[in-house]
Amino acid sequence: MKITVELGERSYPVVVKRGVLERVGMLANLTGRVLVVSDDGVPARYVKTVLAQCGQGHVFTLPQGEQSKSVQNWEAIAGFLHSHGFAHGDMVVAVGGGMVGDVAGFAAACYRRGIAWCHVPTTTLAQADAAVGGKTALNLCGAKNVVGAFHQPSLVAIDPATLKTLPQRHHASGLAEALKVGLVGDCELFEILESEDISQNIERILYLSLRYKIELVQQDETDTGQRRMLNFGHTFGHAIEAASGLGPNGLLHGEAVALGMLPMIEGRALLRRTRAVMKKLGLPMKMPYDKDAVLQYIQNDKKRNGDAYTVVRVKTLGQGYLEKISFEELALLVKGDAE
Amino acid sequence: MKITVELGERSYPVVVKRGVLERVGMLANLTGRVLVVSDDGVPARYVKTVLAQCGQGHVFTLPQGEQSKSVQNWEAIAGFLHSHGFAHGDMVVAVGGGMVGDVAGFAAACYRRGIAWCHVPTTTLAQADAAVGGKTALNLCGAKNVVGAFHQPSLVAIDPATLKTLPQRHHASGLAEALKVGLVGDCELFEILESEDISQNIERILYLSLRYKIELVQQDETDTGQRRMLNFGHTFGHAIEAASGLGPNGLLHGEAVALGMLPMIEGRALLRRTRAVMKKLGLPMKMPYDKDAVLQYIQNDKKRNGDAYTVVRVKTLGQGYLEKISFEELALLVKGDAE
Repeated sequence: MKITVELGERSYPVVVKRGVLERVGMLANLTGRVLVVSDDGVPARYVKTVLAQCGQGHVFTLPQGEQSKSVQNWEAIAGFLHSHGFAHGDMVVAVGGGMVGDVAGFAAACYRRGIAWCHVPTTTLAQADAAVGGKTALNLCGAKNVVGAFHQPSLVAIDPATLKTLPQRHHASGLAEALKVGLVGDCELFEILESEDISQNIERILYLSLRYKIELVQQDETDTGQRRMLNFGHTFGHAIEAASGLGPNGLLHGEAVALGMLPMIEGRALLRRTRAVMKKLGLPMKMPYDKDAVLQYIQNDKKRNGDAYTVVRVKTLGQGYLEKISFEELALLVKGDAE
Repeated sequence: MKITVELGERSYPVVVKRGVLERVGMLANLTGRVLVVSDDGVPARYVKTVLAQCGQGHVFTLPQGEQSKSVQNWEAIAGFLHSHGFAHGDMVVAVGGGMVGDVAGFAAACYRRGIAWCHVPTTTLAQADAAVGGKTALNLCGAKNVVGAFHQPSLVAIDPATLKTLPQRHHASGLAEALKVGLVGDCELFEILESEDISQNIERILYLSLRYKIELVQQDETDTGQRRMLNFGHTFGHAIEAASGLGPNGLLHGEAVALGMLPMIEGRALLRRTRAVMKKLGLPMKMPYDKDAVLQYIQNDKKRNGDAYTVVRVKTLGQGYLEKISFEELALLVKGDAE
């Protein structure tokens, strides 16, 4: 199936189709110079499959993991593009998960003030969420996404067949973003996650997640209004993720987001159902985190505006709402949850 | 006087007025957190004057010179913003020349995917040209502006009184950009530079330069069409500047641009007049540069698109035109000029 993200001259297709990995070159112009950016956790054959479709293809491989979202890697990619003579009209293709998309997309956003890029996401998290919407970023000072850009890709080519090589823990982390969408905006999606076989319904799950996100991105490309609904779980989630170290021993993004959603759900019944889904998906149910460290990260969180934080809460399934609360109110929620 | 750059929701005023340095806080919202970015060549009292108008002001001082357009300085500014809790609604103010605007503006462009910034240019080059149009960038691998962003400021406040503290060589370098505008688009401006007293006409010179640039920026914000007329002299200029080292012993930007314009002027009469103006302004008339080094830089120049270069040439005063030429044709022009 194909959904178009309608953003005027920045519009682009999101194609969800088994086997699309072999047809990226038919959907995007790969005839010029192409830099395929990937990481060493992505099966080499996916990279080779894309490379085979490029006119003058090169590969840049990052180490797997959140720590690769560094200024150093971004600078190295930009330097590679420069030394290989890339110009406007050439292309960056990210093959991998959200990290690869963030670093490669931000390099494309900045190189010569912006060249085109495509994302071929190979993780559940990137296929259900991160590959769409044009957010790119790097971590700095141990904090998430301190620098970045909105830079929409020219194409998102999602091949659900690539998920079969994904470790189960990463798969569950990605489904957490689908669960997020279910909670704030789509009862049907929540109920599929709750009651149906995940593997048999994966394409429907991806489609419903993307449909909701694309709707919000179209309304609010730069995240100042309704798009912030997608930050459900992220105020705490980013802080829990950062407090867990952003390293190979830390929590995965989706795991941290799932834990970060829990204090934002009002009503015991919905909280109980959500916990049951998290358990079914294989997400961690509890994480003994350092409350003070989490609060410190929240104080620096980019969702802050002046002295108020805009958070997303859910009382009724499928109906998230934005609320401005003070740091003290946020601190109470962390403490309530951690008790 | 005030000119508005009309770019829809990214519109902003450019104010040219003696004494406006003392009134920046009346033209932009400096009540929140403000980071004033400057360099150690800018008189301290200019920075203090702006700082005194800020609610919660901080200062970040770069070393003077082109070498400060580094990833390291950009990362340091973003880290400073992060560690001091800057958020959307807070502000970066660049007080200085084009280098300060490039680094501070690019930090503002990327920090949390974009916060607001203002430019208070204190050099002739920045007042006549660089402060307007939203181009920000860093150098990489010894080449100019390899990474950057289009990020329009919220205000450009130009105080011509600040030019009296500028060294003569920097003043001449800035006037080269005005000369560029005269050649490609404004006979009146060329004739003022040719025949009138510069110091007595500086406000008119700034106004005419800015008026022409703003017109092009409004038509073509991201430099894919007519705005490229402003690149007159820059294909060679950037290469000459880079070949001269981008360091404290290298050529200034405007000096290199002036030299880079000469091979692009057709007709001996206009070339003779231009050389006479350059001499009057105190610009270098000849630079023994390494032809091979210059050609190497041109091969990597960002004005390349595929295998053709779009250059700007002038046959009739005030009427630049864009032309696609091959690398071989460009090389002939360099050689012809260097002989």
